[in-house]
Amino acid sequence: MRTSTGRGLSMAGTLSVLAATISISPAAGANEDLMSAAKRIFKPIPSVVPAVKDNPITHEKVTLGKSLFFDPRLSASEVISCNTCHNLGTGGVDAGPTSIGHRWQLGSRRAPTVYNAVFNVAQFWDGRAADLKAQAAGPVQASVEMNATPDHVLSTLNSMTDYVVMFSKAFPNDAAPVTFENFTKAIEAFEATLITPAAPFDQYLEGDGHALSDQQKAGLKLFMEKGCSSCHNGINVGGQDYFPFGVVEKPAESLLPREDKGRFAVTKNLSDEYVFRSAPLRNVALRPPYFHTGQVWSLKQAVGMMSEVQLGAKLSDEEIDKIVAFLNSLTGQMPKIDYPILPTRTSATPKPSLDK
Amino acid sequence: MRTSTGRGLSMAGTLSVLAATISISPAAGANEDLMSAAKRIFKPIPSVVPAVKDNPITHEKVTLGKSLFFDPRLSASEVISCNTCHNLGTGGVDAGPTSIGHRWQLGSRRAPTVYNAVFNVAQFWDGRAADLKAQAAGPVQASVEMNATPDHVLSTLNSMTDYVVMFSKAFPNDAAPVTFENFTKAIEAFEATLITPAAPFDQYLEGDGHALSDQQKAGLKLFMEKGCSSCHNGINVGGQDYFPFGVVEKPAESLLPREDKGRFAVTKNLSDEYVFRSAPLRNVALRPPYFHTGQVWSLKQAVGMMSEVQLGAKLSDEEIDKIVAFLNSLTGQMPKIDYPILPTRTSATPKPSLDK
Repeated sequence: MRTSTGRGLSMAGTLSVLAATISISPAAGANEDLMSAAKRIFKPIPSVVPAVKDNPITHEKVTLGKSLFFDPRLSASEVISCNTCHNLGTGGVDAGPTSIGHRWQLGSRRAPTVYNAVFNVAQFWDGRAADLKAQAAGPVQASVEMNATPDHVLSTLNSMTDYVVMFSKAFPNDAAPVTFENFTKAIEAFEATLITPAAPFDQYLEGDGHALSDQQKAGLKLFMEKGCSSCHNGINVGGQDYFPFGVVEKPAESLLPREDKGRFAVTKNLSDEYVFRSAPLRNVALRPPYFHTGQVWSLKQAVGMMSEVQLGAKLSDEEIDKIVAFLNSLTGQMPKIDYPILPTRTSATPKPSLDK
Repeated sequence: MRTSTGRGLSMAGTLSVLAATISISPAAGANEDLMSAAKRIFKPIPSVVPAVKDNPITHEKVTLGKSLFFDPRLSASEVISCNTCHNLGTGGVDAGPTSIGHRWQLGSRRAPTVYNAVFNVAQFWDGRAADLKAQAAGPVQASVEMNATPDHVLSTLNSMTDYVVMFSKAFPNDAAPVTFENFTKAIEAFEATLITPAAPFDQYLEGDGHALSDQQKAGLKLFMEKGCSSCHNGINVGGQDYFPFGVVEKPAESLLPREDKGRFAVTKNLSDEYVFRSAPLRNVALRPPYFHTGQVWSLKQAVGMMSEVQLGAKLSDEEIDKIVAFLNSLTGQMPKIDYPILPTRTSATPKPSLDK
């Protein structure tokens, strides 16, 4: 069984993985064998916040990061916050298909969920940000999203004493703690707390054979046997590596527009054309529409389509229903979040900029 | 001392009130006299949720109303919620000057705060909604705001079992509880909980002479003596009645655009031209920019301007600073709000409509 350490796997590599997965699956016949097989491929969401590279998660940093996450004043218009597109009330995403940003511009790809994002190999559909702090630097500056600049962010933060104090507490060893890097680190710290443990599937992986219904177990078995778990495995049931979209058959142009070549834009390797990070499937039932274009609103339709274009398999309706039932077992417990009362703007706070 | 039972007071009525207020003020010299005078004009914010007409406030209704308040899927674009413009993290308002709505359209007036709105005589700057349930029916349908229809709202709510269950619990005596009227009632119930007690001024009104600084007391004295409290009195230090904007002097066109005739649009009485509900000043320091146009970003400037155009008084810098210090004593304690996890959309949920 492969582990999820590699990145940028080529199509050839992907296919060999598919073959490997399929070859072990017949062993997963009996109930216990199914659980053992699942444990080799997947991992439960932990109930504690994971450690993050180069960024110790402290209470002070998380508190600051939560305020930043919800603060629309960090955008140029001062109406868009991280939570606008990564709404924590709706599975960590917006309604889609793609996000509405500054001046009602539409983004080109579906907002990925922020829940459990800390477990992904890298961030964005093409993995262009190595981690959540690198990710946090993106949308705030993107002209079609929050359309701000690091200068705007720092001017805004420095204009409010409460923010300056929060940064001092979150980064006590820094002489000048209000920096754009620390802004991204605080957001990463908050986002690392956005994990959703205790889904039925987690309970199953932890040994409770009754946590899944018979239909869900049958769906899990199919998910592994048919090869879905080749690309969707690990702790996030996806998000752990890169794969071509359309291994067997090219998806429709509406799902795979010619101009968006995915990871190719990051690596410039021809083998990465139309390669994307596999979608993490945790809480997937909470957040249609699906795929990077957000063009498929039904999980059933998404499963049917994926089995055809990725696996060359035409699943029966009953098989798809079983897999969908399994995917429903990936819905975990949402963290409890107190809505933050934000620092009060001052005369030094930059004014909203709506037009440019 | 007048009470705030009247509505649609004419300009002549307003001026006589000014005179009455000014005539009693010299008695408020000593510290205790100041407190007594203040107690006759203002009332503290209660620490319990107030009763609301025709809408008993139950826990179930508040819980439902909170979800509705934060749910962007009730707008046509599915990206704008009540909280977008009445952000509970920033004093119950957005950044302004006026709100950004559907397709990046700009509203014509500053978003009023939702905090303590339950205590206002009526809702909106022109009082066109008698209460919060009537108000809640407005922005969701306004084409420049959420641009939805009652049908869209009801289709959306009925598409999600969790919402249907919440309505059943909130309106247990209704055979068909998912109605647009109940939608507005639930929002009103939640908004009735958005009160901010225990400001220094509340503590002062409740008898703690040390709750205000000397400068704040001097500001309170000026606020009453100069006549500010003629229009800004009662529990919300404003919001209790209607008054002409520009009693003594016409404000600049940028602050009082010719085409927005205020309450005249509601009553069609010529005496209501350029009449507005007095701004409730609770938490006013938290939510610049000021006035219905949102064109003044500094509280100091707002106080100076108001004293000129409403009272014909040219206050000294020191006097203005004192009044601003008093206004800062109106900042109360924000309620603690758990960010709601919203019901999950289904295949029957209407899709976002971004264009029309």
